[in-house]
Amino acid sequence: MTQLGPGRPRLEPRRREGQTPRAEILDAAAELFTNNGYGSTSTRGIADAVGIRQASLYHHFASKDDILDALLAGTITAPLELAERLAVAPESAAVRLYALARFDVSQLCAARWNLGALYLLPELRSERFAAFRARRDELRCHYETLAVAVIAEAGATAVPGAELLPFRLVESVINIRSDEGTPPEYAEQLIPDAVLPLLGWKGDLSVTRAAAAHLV
Amino acid sequence: MTQLGPGRPRLEPRRREGQTPRAEILDAAAELFTNNGYGSTSTRGIADAVGIRQASLYHHFASKDDILDALLAGTITAPLELAERLAVAPESAAVRLYALARFDVSQLCAARWNLGALYLLPELRSERFAAFRARRDELRCHYETLAVAVIAEAGATAVPGAELLPFRLVESVINIRSDEGTPPEYAEQLIPDAVLPLLGWKGDLSVTRAAAAHLV
Repeated sequence: MTQLGPGRPRLEPRRREGQTPRAEILDAAAELFTNNGYGSTSTRGIADAVGIRQASLYHHFASKDDILDALLAGTITAPLELAERLAVAPESAAVRLYALARFDVSQLCAARWNLGALYLLPELRSERFAAFRARRDELRCHYETLAVAVIAEAGATAVPGAELLPFRLVESVINIRSDEGTPPEYAEQLIPDAVLPLLGWKGDLSVTRAAAAHLV
Repeated sequence: MTQLGPGRPRLEPRRREGQTPRAEILDAAAELFTNNGYGSTSTRGIADAVGIRQASLYHHFASKDDILDALLAGTITAPLELAERLAVAPESAAVRLYALARFDVSQLCAARWNLGALYLLPELRSERFAAFRARRDELRCHYETLAVAVIAEAGATAVPGAELLPFRLVESVINIRSDEGTPPEYAEQLIPDAVLPLLGWKGDLSVTRAAAAHLV
């Protein structure tokens, strides 16, 4: 048995990949939440999956909600950072929106577990998750601001309200992944490619793709 | 206490709207599944919400999964019937796809509870829900077939794979409703309006809207 930071020694050899006990707990919880359901998963079940005592889990997380909050934060931290950087970048709005959509779809595909499927949990409506909801709203607003700018650049007549849809189209990769059971790699180009025409934009996608790749 | 078909008499006066005990059970379960979570809801909790004994509930449904299956079926029966009718209708593919998207978004908005939020439950991957998944796949295929026909009619160059996205855009009304907490009535026109340009179609939306309204 090896001592791993705070908490009691492990009951058994480590069962999961992960740099730290915290990372192992998050990975086990993500698997159980996405495969068995959030309501059906207990902190005891998570501790068992990691091979630690339940009491040791509580050295890292105060509650099951805390674990969910950390997992959800992980799904938007990187795209939100990119969106903040893109907001002040000199490139055209089309290139910047393409870059954000491409990065976001790719990271939703690359994640080991389809955590976006948890966005629709009723538990997320509680005050406990207000900070996460606010950050996801920020990300949504970045998408909408860029989309409005693309519509203005395109000078065409987009459907009124179309700026609301790129964010939704990007998140639909979560539904595709859930239905297909595997990350849909084809969506990493398809969804960003579809976002711009949705806004009435009629430029050259191959040029935009290359410029966006440069930005990320 | 009144005798209501099979099962024991009610413990208390009826607590919910509904024509039949079965409808009351479905309504209560839909509320609990969407507000408290599927895993966190018990058949006992559903029976309590209706004001009947748990044993009476089992006269109508064999299990909680059975109730979920009936609720999910209710979300696709009507759009699937329409899609089957539209598949052999003489109108242009653009008008038929518009009609299907409009009807489907409207019914997802009009439903008392946002049941589409349950599509991502891991429980749905089990054999128990194979029939539901097959019917939802049928609906998805109707969308894709119509979308391929719209792309062919439009004669433009749509993004390769764009035919996969109208179904996803329609179902995104579920996410919008979940985030906003109320059915987004503006989406009933916005989403169908956005579906056609996504496919490279450049016709007159007001003409298409009117023709589609005629079809539904």
